[in-house]
Amino acid sequence: MTTSELAPLARQLRVDSVRAADAAGSGHPTSSMSAADLMAVLLARHLRYDFDRPGHPGNDRFILSKGHASPLLYAAYKAAGVVTDEELLTFRKRGSRLEGHPTPRRLPWVEVATGSLGQGLPIGVGMALSGKRLERIPYRVWVLCGDSELAEGSVWEAVEHAGHEHLDNLTAVVDVNRLGQRGPTRHAWDLHAYARRFAAFGWHVVEADGHDLEAVDRAFQEARSTIRQPTVILARTVKGKGVAAAEDREGLHGKPLAEAAAAVGELGGADGTDGLDGSGGTDGADAVRVDVRRPAAARALHATRSGHLELPRHEVGDSVATRTAFGQALAALGTARGDIVALDGEVGDSTRTEYFAKEHPERFFECYIAEQQLVAAAVGLAARGWVPYASTFAAFLTRAHDFVRMAAISGAGINLVGSHAGAAIGQDGPSQMGLEDLAMFRAVHGSTVLYPCDAHQTGELVARMADLDGVRYLRTSRGDTPVIYGPGEEFPVGGSKTLRSSDDDRLTLVAAGVTVHEALTAAEFLDREGIRVRVIDLYSVKPVDRATLREAADRTGCLLTVEDHRPEGGIGDAVADAFSDGGPVPRLVRLAVNTMPGSASPEEQLHGAGIDAESIAAAARLLVEQAVVR
Amino acid sequence: MTTSELAPLARQLRVDSVRAADAAGSGHPTSSMSAADLMAVLLARHLRYDFDRPGHPGNDRFILSKGHASPLLYAAYKAAGVVTDEELLTFRKRGSRLEGHPTPRRLPWVEVATGSLGQGLPIGVGMALSGKRLERIPYRVWVLCGDSELAEGSVWEAVEHAGHEHLDNLTAVVDVNRLGQRGPTRHAWDLHAYARRFAAFGWHVVEADGHDLEAVDRAFQEARSTIRQPTVILARTVKGKGVAAAEDREGLHGKPLAEAAAAVGELGGADGTDGLDGSGGTDGADAVRVDVRRPAAARALHATRSGHLELPRHEVGDSVATRTAFGQALAALGTARGDIVALDGEVGDSTRTEYFAKEHPERFFECYIAEQQLVAAAVGLAARGWVPYASTFAAFLTRAHDFVRMAAISGAGINLVGSHAGAAIGQDGPSQMGLEDLAMFRAVHGSTVLYPCDAHQTGELVARMADLDGVRYLRTSRGDTPVIYGPGEEFPVGGSKTLRSSDDDRLTLVAAGVTVHEALTAAEFLDREGIRVRVIDLYSVKPVDRATLREAADRTGCLLTVEDHRPEGGIGDAVADAFSDGGPVPRLVRLAVNTMPGSASPEEQLHGAGIDAESIAAAARLLVEQAVVR
Repeated sequence: MTTSELAPLARQLRVDSVRAADAAGSGHPTSSMSAADLMAVLLARHLRYDFDRPGHPGNDRFILSKGHASPLLYAAYKAAGVVTDEELLTFRKRGSRLEGHPTPRRLPWVEVATGSLGQGLPIGVGMALSGKRLERIPYRVWVLCGDSELAEGSVWEAVEHAGHEHLDNLTAVVDVNRLGQRGPTRHAWDLHAYARRFAAFGWHVVEADGHDLEAVDRAFQEARSTIRQPTVILARTVKGKGVAAAEDREGLHGKPLAEAAAAVGELGGADGTDGLDGSGGTDGADAVRVDVRRPAAARALHATRSGHLELPRHEVGDSVATRTAFGQALAALGTARGDIVALDGEVGDSTRTEYFAKEHPERFFECYIAEQQLVAAAVGLAARGWVPYASTFAAFLTRAHDFVRMAAISGAGINLVGSHAGAAIGQDGPSQMGLEDLAMFRAVHGSTVLYPCDAHQTGELVARMADLDGVRYLRTSRGDTPVIYGPGEEFPVGGSKTLRSSDDDRLTLVAAGVTVHEALTAAEFLDREGIRVRVIDLYSVKPVDRATLREAADRTGCLLTVEDHRPEGGIGDAVADAFSDGGPVPRLVRLAVNTMPGSASPEEQLHGAGIDAESIAAAARLLVEQAVVR
Repeated sequence: MTTSELAPLARQLRVDSVRAADAAGSGHPTSSMSAADLMAVLLARHLRYDFDRPGHPGNDRFILSKGHASPLLYAAYKAAGVVTDEELLTFRKRGSRLEGHPTPRRLPWVEVATGSLGQGLPIGVGMALSGKRLERIPYRVWVLCGDSELAEGSVWEAVEHAGHEHLDNLTAVVDVNRLGQRGPTRHAWDLHAYARRFAAFGWHVVEADGHDLEAVDRAFQEARSTIRQPTVILARTVKGKGVAAAEDREGLHGKPLAEAAAAVGELGGADGTDGLDGSGGTDGADAVRVDVRRPAAARALHATRSGHLELPRHEVGDSVATRTAFGQALAALGTARGDIVALDGEVGDSTRTEYFAKEHPERFFECYIAEQQLVAAAVGLAARGWVPYASTFAAFLTRAHDFVRMAAISGAGINLVGSHAGAAIGQDGPSQMGLEDLAMFRAVHGSTVLYPCDAHQTGELVARMADLDGVRYLRTSRGDTPVIYGPGEEFPVGGSKTLRSSDDDRLTLVAAGVTVHEALTAAEFLDREGIRVRVIDLYSVKPVDRATLREAADRTGCLLTVEDHRPEGGIGDAVADAFSDGGPVPRLVRLAVNTMPGSASPEEQLHGAGIDAESIAAAARLLVEQAVVR
C-alpha cells in the first residue's frame, strides 16, 4: 500500500472503532482514534504477518499493550480481511471473539492477553529474546503502548532488559495522547521527557507527529533499520482524533462517542450516511482492504528435539533439599528436551537454576532482580513455543502476581518455581519466607500447584509439569530433607501418597513438603503411645486427591492438616474444598503459620509456628483426649 | 565528629558486622562492609536523629533498603549507644531484636521492614511526601540501596514519582559494590549507566568513591543543599571491603567470613587479638561512640484534629454502587478527621477517590498507574502517622502483592480498597475483574477483609476500618446495588447479618457483596416453591463470624456459599475455615467463578459463572431433591 492509500485506511480504522464501541455501548473509541494512524502505517507498510497462518514462525509479533484500544485492533483485523463487519459489531457482546480486551484464547492473531497495563512490553521482550537468541528468525516484535502505562515499573524493567540485550528486533510504539483515564498524564505531551528516559536505558528514540502518516512511516522505517538497539517511537497524538467534540477532551475515556452517527459522518465515514449499522458502512465494495505483507519462509527449530530423560537418583535416607533436586531435574530435563528454557531473578545459586544455566547456557535467561520481567519473559517465551521454568524465592513471586493472573487469561503454559518456602528457611526471617504463595497460586484459574517433600518426588514432578496446561507452580524448600521415595516411584498430578495407615487410625495427618517429615515423626511418637494415625503426603495441592482424602475421612473421621504456610488459602483450605460437594464433611483441624516469625533456626521456626513433630503430636493427643476423634 | 574520626568508626562498623555474622553463623557481612564508610559518614555527620525519641517528628528517616546488610545497621546502633555489644552478638538468634532483616516490630528505630529488595525507595517517597506536603517538617529521608535492586521496576516508579514531585528532602544512597547475590550486576561499576538513568528522571546525581570518606562527606553535603530535586549518591564500593580475601569476590554473598578472627585482625579490630567474643572487642573504653546530631524541635500537626463524622445517607431501595458509597464515605471521613489521606493509581474516577481529592486536595496523592508506588506511599505515610486509603481496581492490587506482604511484616496500618470486584463488572472482561483479591488479602498476616453489599454498610465499614491494626482490605463493586440496610445500622468487623431465617430453613446461603442480592432473590424463588433457606451477608470475610455460621450450621445442616471470586481462597474457604476447630462440620457446597469469563453484560456474567439468583436457586433445589439437605 502506498502512503497515499494510508489516509483512507486510517479513516476507516477510526470509523470502525467508533462503530464498534457504539454497537457495544461501551469500550474505548477515543484511545483507538489516537493510535489509528500508527496502526494504519504499521499494518499496511511494516508488519509482516500471514493472517492465514498465525503460527507461521516468521510472522512478526504485534502486541496491543494498551489493550483497551481493542476496537482499533479489531478494525485492523477487519481491514486485513479476517473479521467481517458483522463480527466487528458483536464487539463486547456475550460469546463474541471480540472481547473488551483481546485474548489469544479467542483470537488466533492475538499473541497474549492484555488489559492490565505495562505488560505488553515485558512480554514482548520475552518474544524478542526468543527470536534473537533461540529461534534466530528475523521477525520483529511491535508493541503498541499507551503513555499512561509508562508509569508502571514493569515497563522500565523491560526497557532495561531490552536495552541491555540490544534487542534491535523490538520496537515500542508509544501513543502519547496526553490523557490517561482520569486526566492528563504526568508528562502530557512532553515527548522529550520520555525520550530522555528511554535513551538513558540505551534505546534508539524517534519522536514523531503520530498523525503525520509520512513521518510515522519514516519512524517505522528507522526502527527497522536500527541495529544493536531497540527502538521506541514516541508519537505525539490526539485522543479522539478526527472528531472535534472528542479531540483532546477529558472525561471521555472508555466511553462510546455521544453522537456516534455524526462522528462517523465527520470522519467522512460513509458518504454522508451514518453508516453505524453497516448499511452505509465500510464493509462493501468501498471498504479499504489491506494486503499485509507476508514473512519470508522460516523454520521452527525447537518443536521436535527430545530424548530420553535421565533424572538424578539418590539413596533413600539421603538428605537433599527439594530446591537442589529441582535444579538437578531441570538440568536433566533440559538435556532430554530442546524446548525447555529456564529463567531466574538473579538468585540461581539459591533456586538452583544455576545447574541448568551451566549445562544449557544458551537456553538460560538471567532476568536480574526484576520478577515482573522474569514472569513476563516466560510468558513471551511460552507464546513462541518454548516450555519455560522461571524461578525465584517463593516470596518474591508475589511481585509478579498480576503477570501470573494475566498469563492465566492468556492461557499461557508456564512453569513457576518458588524456593525458600515457609518458616523452615530459618534465620533470614519473614521477608524471605514464602508463606502466602500457595494461596496466590491456588486462586489462579486453571493452575496446578505442586509441593514435593523429597528429591525423587521433586524430579518426577518437574518433568510432569512440563506438559500440563496453564500456570504450573512448584514450591521448593531451602533445607535438606530425607529421601523417602524410591527413584522409580510415580507421582501423578492430582494424586497423593498415603505413607502410613492402619485399620485403627484415629485421625489423618495431611501434610506436604517439610511437614511430611514432621508428620511422619509425629506419627511415630503417637504410635508409641498407642495412638495410630494415618499420614498423607498431599504433594498435589491443586488438583487435590479428593478420593484419597474422602477415604481417609470415612476411615478416620478427622483430618489434621499441617502446613508451612499461612492458615488461609493453602493446604487446609484445599482439603476443606475437597469436601465442598455436599457430602458429609469430616472433622477438620489445621496447623499452620499463625505467627509473624522472627529469626531462628529452622527447627525453632517450625516449633514456634506449631508445625513440628512435637506440635503435631500434641495436637493429635489433645483431639484424642477430648474425644473429638473416636 | 570530625572527618578524621570517621575512619575508626567505619572500621568498627566493619569489625562489628563481621563479628555479628560470625556469631550468628549466617548473615551478610560483605554487603555490610561495602557500605560501612557510607554509613559512618551519614551517622556521624549528616543524620539528625534522636535515638531516645524515635517518634520525634523532626527526626530524619533512615531506610536500609538493602535490608540484608542488617549487621551494618545493628553495628551503627551499637555505635550510637542504643544496642550493646552483647546484644549485637545475639544477631539472628531466636528472640533477638536483631533479625536477619530489620523490622519495626522489634526495633523502634527501624521505619519499615525491608528484605524484599526495591521497596525502601518507594516507601521513602511516601515519607518524603509526608514531610514536604503534609507535616512540613524539614526532616530528610535517607535510603541506602543496593545496586542489584535497581533492576526492580518499583525503584523506577519511585524515581519517577520523586523526580516529578521535586522531593529534595529525599536522598538515595546506592552502594554500587558491583556484585549481586550470584555474580556481577548488569552494570557492575558503570556508575555513569546509573547516573544517566536517574538524571533522565530529574534527579540530581552525585558520583563518589564510596570509600573516600571526605568525598562521601561532600556528597552527603551536596544532597542536603540541593533544592527542587531529589539526590542520588552513586557510591563506587567494594564488597567485603577491608578484608583482602573477601574483597570483590564472588560466592561470598550472604555468608559469614571464613576466617572471621583473622578478618577482624586484618581490619585492625582489637589490638591483634581476635575480638570475636567481645573480650578484646569494641565495646569497652576503646569503642567508638557517635553522638548523632539531634533534630530541631518540631511539632506533629495531624495527631489530634478530629470532628463528627457525617456519613452519607440513602433511601432503602435506592441503587448505589458500593464504590460510590466508598468514595462518599471517604470524603466524609476526611472532613471529620485530619489524619486521613487518600491515594489512587490514576483511576480515581472509577474507584471514586475523586470525591476525596476534590474535597481534600492537599491530602490526596495521585500515584498514576504505578501500583507498587501506590501501596508503598501508603506504607510510608502510615509510618508517619497518617491513616492512608489507597485505591485502584481490585485486579491491579495484585501488582502490589509483595508490598502488601511486607507491610504486614512492618505492622503497617494501611487501608486498601479494590474496586471492580468480580465478573459482575461485565463487558470489560477478565483482565479488569478482581477475582483473586480475597485469596490474596486473606492470606496476609493480621489482615482484615471486608466486602460490603450496600451503601450504608460500605460507609460504616470505611469508617470502622480506619482504626484497625494491620492491613485492611475493602472490596467494592462497579455496578449499582440496592440499599438494603438503614442508615443507622451497625456492622462490627467480624460480624455478619442474617437477612432471612425461619425455623424451617433447609440450608443456608452465605453470600457477600453482589451475591447477597442474588441470594435474597433466590431465597424468594425458593420460598414460592416451599423451600425455606437462610441468608447470611458475610460482609466480614476475615475475621469471619464463626458463631453465626456455627448456629446456621446447627440449624440448617448445610451451607451453600456464593461468591463472585475464584473458588479458592475466598468466601468458600473462609466459611470452611470457620469449622476447622475439630467440631462437627456441616455439609458445604460452593458456587464461585470457575470459568474464564469473556465479555458480556453484568447479568450475563453472573449467570455464566453460575452465581446469579437462578443458579443459586437451582443448586439449592438440587440439594433438596437429592436429599442432601433435610
